[in-house]
Amino acid sequence: MPEFLKLTSSDSALTAFLGAMSDPQVEVELIPTEGSLGRVLAEPVIAGDPLPPFARSTVDGYAVVASDTHGASAGLPAYLDLIGEIRMGTQSDLSLKAGQAALVHTGGMLPSGADAVVMVEDTQRVDGHQIEVLKPVAVGGNVLQRGEDVQPGDQVLRAGIQLGPQEIGGLMALGVTQLSVARKPRVAILSTGDEVVPPDRQPGPAQVRDVNSYSLSALVEAGGAIPIRYGIIPDQAAVLGESARQARAEADMVLITAGSSVSERDITAEVIAELGSPGILVHGVAIKPGKPTILAVCDGIPVAGLPGNPISAIIASRLFVLPVIRKLLGMSGPQWQPVIRARLSTSVASVAGREDFLPVQLQVAPEGVQAVPVFGRSNLIFTLVRADGLVRIAPEATGLEAGAQVEVRLF
Amino acid sequence: MPEFLKLTSSDSALTAFLGAMSDPQVEVELIPTEGSLGRVLAEPVIAGDPLPPFARSTVDGYAVVASDTHGASAGLPAYLDLIGEIRMGTQSDLSLKAGQAALVHTGGMLPSGADAVVMVEDTQRVDGHQIEVLKPVAVGGNVLQRGEDVQPGDQVLRAGIQLGPQEIGGLMALGVTQLSVARKPRVAILSTGDEVVPPDRQPGPAQVRDVNSYSLSALVEAGGAIPIRYGIIPDQAAVLGESARQARAEADMVLITAGSSVSERDITAEVIAELGSPGILVHGVAIKPGKPTILAVCDGIPVAGLPGNPISAIIASRLFVLPVIRKLLGMSGPQWQPVIRARLSTSVASVAGREDFLPVQLQVAPEGVQAVPVFGRSNLIFTLVRADGLVRIAPEATGLEAGAQVEVRLF
Repeated sequence: MPEFLKLTSSDSALTAFLGAMSDPQVEVELIPTEGSLGRVLAEPVIAGDPLPPFARSTVDGYAVVASDTHGASAGLPAYLDLIGEIRMGTQSDLSLKAGQAALVHTGGMLPSGADAVVMVEDTQRVDGHQIEVLKPVAVGGNVLQRGEDVQPGDQVLRAGIQLGPQEIGGLMALGVTQLSVARKPRVAILSTGDEVVPPDRQPGPAQVRDVNSYSLSALVEAGGAIPIRYGIIPDQAAVLGESARQARAEADMVLITAGSSVSERDITAEVIAELGSPGILVHGVAIKPGKPTILAVCDGIPVAGLPGNPISAIIASRLFVLPVIRKLLGMSGPQWQPVIRARLSTSVASVAGREDFLPVQLQVAPEGVQAVPVFGRSNLIFTLVRADGLVRIAPEATGLEAGAQVEVRLF
Repeated sequence: MPEFLKLTSSDSALTAFLGAMSDPQVEVELIPTEGSLGRVLAEPVIAGDPLPPFARSTVDGYAVVASDTHGASAGLPAYLDLIGEIRMGTQSDLSLKAGQAALVHTGGMLPSGADAVVMVEDTQRVDGHQIEVLKPVAVGGNVLQRGEDVQPGDQVLRAGIQLGPQEIGGLMALGVTQLSVARKPRVAILSTGDEVVPPDRQPGPAQVRDVNSYSLSALVEAGGAIPIRYGIIPDQAAVLGESARQARAEADMVLITAGSSVSERDITAEVIAELGSPGILVHGVAIKPGKPTILAVCDGIPVAGLPGNPISAIIASRLFVLPVIRKLLGMSGPQWQPVIRARLSTSVASVAGREDFLPVQLQVAPEGVQAVPVFGRSNLIFTLVRADGLVRIAPEATGLEAGAQVEVRLF
């Protein structure tokens, strides 16, 4: 049996991982709406007021009684008495009777008695006191009714949505100037590897700088959580175990980037296995890069053992860490994955049973957008830097032909 | 001639707007790399060190002299003397001679004299002092050469790119712990409208709360700039002109959301026209919603007069404000627009010569993803809140058929 068929598929791995998490109790934080961009709503928002709060004109024109305009035409206009102008922002004391009209601006409030607005283009001034209406208007014509957008009591936003510019605008329209959002989950990041030194240190011979703590911090931050770096932990089960227990107690999720060798990975697996129940759910995923990923839930806390090599760690985190953060935030609804469609510039091989994520660079060519694979070994961080996004090669495929239409997920 | 043919197309409007801006002098800010997520690099980064800094094994195995393994097979293995183990993170004083092998872990440094690594799977231990090699390995096999990812002097990142997890990881690998990024541009936001009150105030009759100041602030923030709200300015040319001049002096870009009536829009246009040269470049764009957009450059500062209605203001800002922010940040390279492909659930009409942006909700149906138009008048902010994204209807189209394949740009 080919090696990858013995491993868990990425879909099953994610399902097992999310399924073993208890439904998180989203902790709530009250913040000003004006600072809520990107945050996740923790409670539904119910409208207290109607929107719009009064019947408004959608055009510049004249407020009228619609029945006065019936049959009006350029040849046979309806003559109406102009009784005044509706000023913006103040309630008019004008009250319209049959045969009368009042000047009104876009957004202006309809005066009492009026039930429609004739566009200024469909009228003609006779003098300061009279207008001609050249076209009929129906009841409600060019009028936005009170409550047409939102009625009091309507649930306008549900819990679990992420707040963007229009949600923030809508909340302000309703006077909701503060609101309950999910507290950002804390994600502990532990790096291991006896050869790894902090980035501000000059590595000695045989040493390399810590990449994963920082790339994963950024990924976690981009996903809406707070990264907490626990630094570089020596590759000893007792020391790593102690740090992992502390992280499990302090954070909402724990990431351990394993050392790259088998023995280091064994230590990581051993530490995670002893961290709590149910423990390890998935050990090895049928993806490339990212195969040596460990997924566990330990006493309620999701724990991921990520591959030591930087590209694998990033790709595995996009697949398995970001969805956990969404769940911790209480985010609901489908996670849409927008893509750029492109043509693959060269054929690439893949192994059946294995899901591949191919870094590609996008290039605009006369015949359309090209996805050019950025070949490089998965240990090389700048291979990924040179790419714009990833092409997924499905497990059942044995490769993709040059010229094939592919979907590129941008970073 | 249909009305929309007299207006500027959105492409020409943007070209004129960006073209009239002087090439911005990007102001530089030195920040720690670990806090640089989403920032834009202001200067290229040149590698000082090679990556990897030494020849590393890509597997767990034995460092060897490749020529010793030529012709080796399971039937006729090559016997090598095991002279020790390469510990991670410390330079080994082992020096390999012909006929010798040393245990090495993934990521470990090759000892001097070795030129390849045999995978542990392709070997067998004879005893503590000897191994059998069952498969030949070529020179350089399973070895990542020093500098294979990056050579000293290589430009690893160019100015104008936005920093993501992998760029931050790569910078750390090179020991670049602080870097020069573009200072965030300041975008002044002025709201007008005599009927508009701040969101924390209970509107009186005929009054509405300010939506645009806050939705546009969020959009500007999402685009990487700093919004500065100048509040709600009375609809008087002298007062608005004074605020606009102050904003032009203090900010890198000025947005004025015009009142909704013709007379208010006239005041906005008059104020912008007098704000500096060359002044108004575009007055009215062939888009819906968003038609009454004004684009100007006034004494070097880009100024946009945005429609008063909230949805139009957001859509026009996505088209014309975000690209200016990118330019102010010095961002270079194509702006990829990832999309979700879906089938339109119902036919929609459009006017030839006008580019439409249709808010749609995405729904997962058995036959695939459906884009369901969220109909509503453009004054209704919650119409946009109920949508997941926009479908662009090209100017030359007169509508889209139910079942048509469309590309949805998510918010």
